[in-house]
Amino acid sequence: MNPTVTAIAQSPDRGRGLARDMAVRWALEEVGQPYDVRLLSFAALKEPAHRVLQPFGQIPTYEDGTLALFESAAIVLHIAKCHAGLLPDDADARARAIAWMFAAKGTVEPPVVERSMAVLFEADRPWHAERLPMLDERVRVRLSDLAQWLTGRDWLEGELSAADVVMVTVLRRLGGSGLLEEQPTVASYVARGEARPAFGRAFDAQRAVFNAATT
Amino acid sequence: MNPTVTAIAQSPDRGRGLARDMAVRWALEEVGQPYDVRLLSFAALKEPAHRVLQPFGQIPTYEDGTLALFESAAIVLHIAKCHAGLLPDDADARARAIAWMFAAKGTVEPPVVERSMAVLFEADRPWHAERLPMLDERVRVRLSDLAQWLTGRDWLEGELSAADVVMVTVLRRLGGSGLLEEQPTVASYVARGEARPAFGRAFDAQRAVFNAATT
Repeated sequence: MNPTVTAIAQSPDRGRGLARDMAVRWALEEVGQPYDVRLLSFAALKEPAHRVLQPFGQIPTYEDGTLALFESAAIVLHIAKCHAGLLPDDADARARAIAWMFAAKGTVEPPVVERSMAVLFEADRPWHAERLPMLDERVRVRLSDLAQWLTGRDWLEGELSAADVVMVTVLRRLGGSGLLEEQPTVASYVARGEARPAFGRAFDAQRAVFNAATT
Repeated sequence: MNPTVTAIAQSPDRGRGLARDMAVRWALEEVGQPYDVRLLSFAALKEPAHRVLQPFGQIPTYEDGTLALFESAAIVLHIAKCHAGLLPDDADARARAIAWMFAAKGTVEPPVVERSMAVLFEADRPWHAERLPMLDERVRVRLSDLAQWLTGRDWLEGELSAADVVMVTVLRRLGGSGLLEEQPTVASYVARGEARPAFGRAFDAQRAVFNAATT
């Protein structure tokens, strides 16, 4: 039996791989683990059958035998623990790779999402033009710190790890903002992630869902 | 040698235990691991000597022998892995407890912090009164989902775990907003965390830093 991942049937990202199943698909492709996908409507997310798997009514979830898991980074970490290749062998390096996963979700993603939400929901409000530079600046601070860390490094901690799978998918949400391009070291890092064959396979798989939904 | 945790010498939370060293102190108290604290000024956070430990120039860091770690939740997870008592024994339950740690930092904390930042930095702006209800609502959605999960449960996953240490410290940042009180199930959960003797010892230790800085 393959593990089953949930994803949105009609993702609002229009197949750009910005939904949070992307990191899970990418991790599974990196370790060569085939998986099944169960597509959900937005309405189904809020139903009790899904809530029992995902208390916040989001995607993705991950079901494998007796295990039902939620939170994309936690799922990626679980996959990395069950297969070789996505976490350093050295105990200290492994703990630091996990720290980077928390940094991606708890330190880098929040200002990125705050900015996207403002662009999405407040662009027509009178204050948006005045607030946007502040939101940009919060993202810039994180990207500048990240650029400093990535200088002379290909990946966050040694070889490509679960930390990069999570961080690159977080950073891709900045596409179109122009902010990534201001930090060439970070932009190159994202491009390095996107160039992984496993990323390509995951991207194509989620794109196929979008294509199927629109034809 | 005890592990060493960094904290801010003059925390802007005025000793209310809202700085991110609190979760680490609490976890260490739960497992009975003595620790040393190295206090840092705000200026020291941005210096290379600290950046090498914490790429984003924040606290806490955790140094133990050869290991240097950052991100409070990652440190709590590391402590939970090295000592008994803060993670379930069952593999599935353990993976879910870790998922809750990511949920606390990546799903619950962002709207909580977004709201605090607005109150802190935008309260005097003309748009604040109109935006605040939207920010409150984003927090309410998370608290309502969390209340549903916590109904009939004392802790997020079985007994008190690392997930609760992280989640309760995140929720405590809502103190004074009135939002916690709207969800008695969640408020009781936070109170249950605060009633732990280990929480009390950790709270007193960080309060002593504030008291020392102001006398």
